[in-house]
Parts: sequence; C-alpha cells; structure tokens
Amino acid sequence: MKIDGKQYRSVWLSDDKKSIHIFNQERLPYSLEILTLSTMAEAADAIVTMKTRGAPLIGVVGAYGLAFAISEDTSDRHIEDSYKVLVETRPTAINLKWALQRLKQAVLNVPEISRKELAFKVCADIADEDVELCKNIGIHGLELIKQIAAAKPEGETVNIMTHCNAGWLATVDWGTALAPIYMAYNEGIDVHVWVDETRPRNQGTLTAFELGKHGVKHTLIADNAGGHLMQHGEVDMVIVGTDRVTANGDVCNKIGTYLKALAAKENRVPFYVALPSPTIDPEVADGVKEIPIEQRAGQEQSHVQGITELGKRGIVNTAPEGTRCANYAFDVTPAELVTGLITERGFCDANRQSIKKMFPELLSSSK
Amino acid sequence: MKIDGKQYRSVWLSDDKKSIHIFNQERLPYSLEILTLSTMAEAADAIVTMKTRGAPLIGVVGAYGLAFAISEDTSDRHIEDSYKVLVETRPTAINLKWALQRLKQAVLNVPEISRKELAFKVCADIADEDVELCKNIGIHGLELIKQIAAAKPEGETVNIMTHCNAGWLATVDWGTALAPIYMAYNEGIDVHVWVDETRPRNQGTLTAFELGKHGVKHTLIADNAGGHLMQHGEVDMVIVGTDRVTANGDVCNKIGTYLKALAAKENRVPFYVALPSPTIDPEVADGVKEIPIEQRAGQEQSHVQGITELGKRGIVNTAPEGTRCANYAFDVTPAELVTGLITERGFCDANRQSIKKMFPELLSSSK
Repeated sequence: MKIDGKQYRSVWLSDDKKSIHIFNQERLPYSLEILTLSTMAEAADAIVTMKTRGAPLIGVVGAYGLAFAISEDTSDRHIEDSYKVLVETRPTAINLKWALQRLKQAVLNVPEISRKELAFKVCADIADEDVELCKNIGIHGLELIKQIAAAKPEGETVNIMTHCNAGWLATVDWGTALAPIYMAYNEGIDVHVWVDETRPRNQGTLTAFELGKHGVKHTLIADNAGGHLMQHGEVDMVIVGTDRVTANGDVCNKIGTYLKALAAKENRVPFYVALPSPTIDPEVADGVKEIPIEQRAGQEQSHVQGITELGKRGIVNTAPEGTRCANYAFDVTPAELVTGLITERGFCDANRQSIKKMFPELLSSSK
Repeated sequence: MKIDGKQYRSVWLSDDKKSIHIFNQERLPYSLEILTLSTMAEAADAIVTMKTRGAPLIGVVGAYGLAFAISEDTSDRHIEDSYKVLVETRPTAINLKWALQRLKQAVLNVPEISRKELAFKVCADIADEDVELCKNIGIHGLELIKQIAAAKPEGETVNIMTHCNAGWLATVDWGTALAPIYMAYNEGIDVHVWVDETRPRNQGTLTAFELGKHGVKHTLIADNAGGHLMQHGEVDMVIVGTDRVTANGDVCNKIGTYLKALAAKENRVPFYVALPSPTIDPEVADGVKEIPIEQRAGQEQSHVQGITELGKRGIVNTAPEGTRCANYAFDVTPAELVTGLITERGFCDANRQSIKKMFPELLSSSK
C-alpha cells in the first residue's frame, strides 16, 4: 500500500539482508518512524511493546526473530530455546505460533549448515504468502460488498463498520478486514467506513491513517457509538479481523468486538470476520473457555497518546491519581454471532463443518 | 458528599444569594475549580459546554439560570424568552425541561413583584428535593445490592458495573446509579465497581474520582471490556443512570449504554437503571424513534484531556490530521433489555403498566 505515493509493505528486508525494517506502530499515526530489527531480542521487544502488531504481521516479525537467532547459533537447542522466548511474547494471536512452528520445523529438518539461509527464505515465503492470502480475502470480500451495494438504492453509500486495525499495517500488505474495502474503493464503489476508536490503544487511529492515505471516506467514532448507529440503519455491514478462530468458529479479536457482534445480531446487520487460514487454531474448540486473553498494563488504559497543543507527540494520563486500571486486550465472539468468515478461499460459515469443508487439511485430524 | 473531608453539594447558593457555585466539570478530575454563575448567559454556557452536566444537575442549574433572568426582568415575555434559550441548551435529558417548566409555571402564576423571590425559592426546592430523591433511590437500590450479596458465597465481593457518571457530580448530592453503591459501602458491604471510561468525554474518570474520594474499590476499564467481563462472570449487576425514560420504559443514557445492556441480557446479568421521577418523560413512548440524540463536536472525540508528563492539565489530539469524527452523545436502550428501574419510590419494571402503577400522577393522562 502507499503512504504519500510511496509503496510500502509493513515489514521488509534491509539491503544487508540481515535485518528487517518495520514501522514503529507505537508512534503511528503521530510520526512515521522506521525501525531496524536485527536480533531476536529486538524482534521480541517490538512484539511485546506493540511497536509491531496485528496477528499476521507479528507472525512474520516473530519468524524473522527466530531467523536472527538461527543466524547466531544454528543448534537445535538454541532454536528450541529461541522459539520458546518468541512464542510467549504475546499469548492470544495464533499466527505467531503458527509462523514460528513452521519455521522451526523447516530448519530442524535440514543440516545446520543450511539452516540460516533456509530460515530467511521461509520468512520471506511467509511474508509473500501473507500478501497473497490478504489479496484473496480482498477479492472474496469485495463480492460481498458488491452484493450489499447492489441491494441498496442507486447512488447510496455502503457503510461498513470496523473495529481495531486489520489493515495493511496489521499484515504485510492489503490487510484482512480492510482488503475488501480497499478493493471496493479501487473499483469505484461508494464506501464509507465507521472506524471504531478501539480503546485502550486507539488502533482505530491507525485505520483512519491508512484509509486517509488511500482516500477512502471514513469517520472516527467512539467504540460506544456502534450500537446506536446500527439501531438507526447507519451500518450496512461489519467487517473485522481476528487473532484466532477456533475449530468451532468462535472468533477472538480485539476487546470490544463481542459488543459489536451482539449489536449487529440484534439489529440484523451482517457481521463478517476476515482471516487468512493461519489464524485458524484447529486445536481449540470453545473460544470463550480455551483462548488465553492477554492482560496488559493498566497504564495503556490511563495514558493516551496524541499530538499536543504545541504540535508534538505527547501523552496525557486521563485517570485520577491512584486509580486502578484493567486492560483486557481481546474478547471472544461466539460463532453464533458471526454471519460468515471471509478467507483466502472464499466464504464459509462460522462452524466446524463449514470450516472443515473449506480447509480439510487443517481440521481433518482435530478433535 | 465529601472531597478530602469537606462536605459539598455539586451546586450551591453563594453567600450573596444572587449567584450559584458549581464545580467546573470540564476540568475535573484534573483540577478542582469552583465557578460562580450569576447570569442566565453564564448558566446556559455552563450547560452547553458541559462545565456542569448530569441530567438532574443541569435541571437545577438551568432553573437557576431562569431565576437569574427573572432577577433582571420579571415580565412574562422575558420569562418565556429566557425559558426558550435555556431549554435548548441540551436536547436529550428531560430533567432540564421539567425543572424549567416547573419554575416558569410557578412564577407566571404570581404577580411580577413576587417572582424573583419565588424563583430562587423554587430552585432551592428543586435542589433539595433532588437530594431527597437520590437518597431514596440509594435506599431502594441498597436492597438490591444486599440481595445480590446474600446470594453470593460468604466473603465474595459484589461486582457492579456502571457507565458514565451518575454520581453526586451528576445530581445535587448522592447520585442516582452511585447512590446505592455509596450506601452499600457505608453499610460495610464489600463492593467493587467496574467503571467504564465512557468515551468520548471520559466521564468514567469523574466516577473514579468520586468513588476514590469516598473510598469505594473500583477499576477503570475501556468501554470495550464490559462484554468480556460479563461473559466471564465478573459482573454481578449493572447500574446506570439515565437522561430520559419514556412512558414505555425505554432508557436514553450516555452513548454505549445500549451495548452494555445487550451484553447483560446475553449473559444474564441484571441491568438496572436508577432515576428520579423527573427523568420520566410521559410524552414520549418509543425512545429509539422519538428521543432527539444530541450530536456534539467531533473534537470531543479526537481531543483527550489529562495530566501531561510535566504534571499539568493538557490536551492531545489522537486523530490523524484531517480525520472526520462523529460524536453521538446518547443512545437508547429498549425497555426489554432493562431488568428494572430503581426510583425514589422503589423498583418497577421498565414498562408502561409498572411505571404508571408507581407514578400514577405522571402517566394517567398520557397517550
């Protein structure tokens, strides 16, 4: 995707081929800062502190972290130890584990001497494949938007609501939830996006940034506003991304997604979840009971970043002194609230049977 | 209620008996600033800019605004004109209209020479009555909390969720939703309050401020977190205030209330609404269709106030430059999502029959 006319991915290999570049998403959208990561510790830190974020993207950055570790020591022991460090950087999104396992298995299958080169090759493959997966999600999701546009009176805008940032900044390119929206815009469909602010980390501002740079009409709203808008017919569809989808179709995503899904069901607004297949966790069935929900520092709730009156990046503490804050990062939307899943292979219903039909290789042997 | 040991109401007559004092709620909880209002224009401005807020409290401040107008000119014409200015300062809460009508009718019934004195007398009555109403809401709500506490295993905390600020800062004293909580705390019941941040204006920080000053355990959370907490059994009941309850029992309250009500219903968490009877609008039946929802400036969404790293009050703009923001101030929770209304006369169900039985004088002649 483009920023001010220049083509970017959200992660790319540096010229020396030994390190990667990412945008510092802790600073976005307030300043565009490019970081270089060249060690496992740097990659782990970038994931933990959310300098890089988004389920598919942390899969890629995590994999590069493991490749950096392998560059230093190609032994089985070091690879296993490094895997353990990286897989624990964030507990909820499954793509990280998926990417790390894929890379680990690949390199453990070859002699030590070939591991370093193979590791970087696998990382590049994962990144390239992610772009392809997202592009295909976009193509399938575009059909849905076209259907909704066709069902509306001629000339009416299609209003799409999204939560968090599941755009190209959360993947390598295109995004998941936003890919169909970009494609609809590119095809000249009149789309407008209701962008949930997505407290406490305000990832909605990243979505507003992305959509703004691409020229897509959008309005930033409080997370609280979605129910009211749906109640009054102002939302034609909801599309969100996800950090993990269980074999039963339960959807784990950014905290607050569940509330929007409830409102969508109540108001008969279609609620779609866009995901590449690495987001499916075949080993988990009941998302509410089984998915670990990350709790992050309360300070992320109380302290809000933005541009000060002096035009500089700054942080304000919104909570009265001494206030205890809690910060649950994700919630789980039960499958029955989900209208459908938009995957790289097309739509499927959010249930085991449909997911298995679409991805037989994933669910064939699962419980 | 007390701040640092000193007893306050949220509005009080100054020593000269010609003006009133309020806390500047635009600055709370970051600084404790007391304002003096002595003209209708000052009262109207305080309401519009939300220096004063909360449905019952703006009723009282609005009434004093009309009393200030009457101090200057006791003619029918001036009273009617001033009424019109004040009643339009905020469109959604009904208490403002109720208080202004009560005062206007009272003064128009007496000779001009008696109007000024009567006006201040009626304002003081409305304020004193509000304290009494809220106290009684507290007494009735306390019974509910006691029931919930009794149904829990010995020694377990009662977890109550609230949205926005319906505490003493939103009324003259005690509050509506918070009155039962203060009374439960005062009786030694182990209560803990989940305080919704309440974007975009973060009135949850006022609730955290109030509860903190009183010593009630509480945790500030993103508005997004409520569904997750209810799904996991972390919420025993929800109590919110309201800006207008229709004759059918639909509840208009701060934007986002509806999403919490949906989650409460889904997870079988009792959802209570605390209100003094002046909040009932007997002239409106269908809240979703009929109540005007105030839209405020988008800047209230993008610009967030708090304490800067230098320890001073400051504001940051969280939205990327040029982002359009929308700011819907209220939403409507349909009656069927409401477990019950806590009023000064006791509980009633959120439907016309029950409300009429509890307040026959209000609904007897309504449509």
